[in-house]
Amino acid sequence: MLDVVVLVSGGGTNLQAVMDAVDEGRITNARIAGVISNNPNAYALERARKKGIANCCISPKMFETREEFNEKFLEAVDEMEPDLIVLAGFLVVIPPVMIRKYRNQIINIHPSLIPSFCGKGYYGLKVHEAALERGVKVTGATVHFVDEGTDTGPIILQKAVEIRQEDTPEALQRRVMEQAEWKILPQAVDLIANGKIKVVDNQVRFL
Amino acid sequence: MLDVVVLVSGGGTNLQAVMDAVDEGRITNARIAGVISNNPNAYALERARKKGIANCCISPKMFETREEFNEKFLEAVDEMEPDLIVLAGFLVVIPPVMIRKYRNQIINIHPSLIPSFCGKGYYGLKVHEAALERGVKVTGATVHFVDEGTDTGPIILQKAVEIRQEDTPEALQRRVMEQAEWKILPQAVDLIANGKIKVVDNQVRFL
Repeated sequence: MLDVVVLVSGGGTNLQAVMDAVDEGRITNARIAGVISNNPNAYALERARKKGIANCCISPKMFETREEFNEKFLEAVDEMEPDLIVLAGFLVVIPPVMIRKYRNQIINIHPSLIPSFCGKGYYGLKVHEAALERGVKVTGATVHFVDEGTDTGPIILQKAVEIRQEDTPEALQRRVMEQAEWKILPQAVDLIANGKIKVVDNQVRFL
Repeated sequence: MLDVVVLVSGGGTNLQAVMDAVDEGRITNARIAGVISNNPNAYALERARKKGIANCCISPKMFETREEFNEKFLEAVDEMEPDLIVLAGFLVVIPPVMIRKYRNQIINIHPSLIPSFCGKGYYGLKVHEAALERGVKVTGATVHFVDEGTDTGPIILQKAVEIRQEDTPEALQRRVMEQAEWKILPQAVDLIANGKIKVVDNQVRFL
């Protein structure tokens, strides 16, 4: 049984997608061991409480220095003894020491088809604003392992979503969630929980 | 009736896709007025001859200077009096003067989902090698208007194609052609021929 810790900053719809997939048997051999938010008001925490899932809030704002936060943050994660850490709209930079400790055990969902519209400065609504600004007709979402770079880690799954002429950034964001993120994030967790993928030469291979 | 001139360098499968679409009525209000190749051995020229379509070969290699080629090349294009110029795997840089003269009348097919794997150095098989090297799970093709940049012009159509684990660059190239290029290139010609799109603020709008 894979113990999954989900890191969140906001509403937690991706957390909900993973919870639902566990409940409905679309994710097997995994359970959500804990939820950590950097935002005390994140509705994601409420979702965790409702399900009786361990949860806590830890934010850089609570500490004098980033180093201090990083240390306590790693402690909070370690305490939940995760086999897999899922960044589900988590807006805090993961400390390098955590990336090293949990090599190929941290996954992130990014709301574009990497390598388009990713890297520094591309998060949340900004990703969709950039896609509409460029006038692309297809976007999507990507689940990838987290390495030391920004959105540079091995790609696990991607799913394309068509852009409509009338799309606003908000409408596009919602549709990318519905049509891509909420599907491929649970799929990726299930693949990992069932030993179906491994990383070889910085690439994800399906077994 | 839109007169289309197709510029080619190789086998001309995209040219064939446009020819077939005209024959089968998937492109209306357009005809292929001419084919120009920079490669005298391009099979695309043979395809044109078989259909009785005007064709010629003009290459930078035939001239002492690039300026001289650019001048004669523009003359050769002008002579065919195109309403639309289609770059169908044409590997020669379009002279800026031609881009200005035929503003929003030149379209190109690129074998990736722009802005991924595009720009200088990304052409032909190199695009697919880069996609496999990065380990993306979704790629595709893009039809766009040609501006002064490399693959930077307004995007008309894009179509996604899933990558398979066993894909070689060659296998992927073939599938991107079959599933994306040969579909969206004729679609784009048909849209233009029927006045269905215009460029506003550097973006393609569907009317």
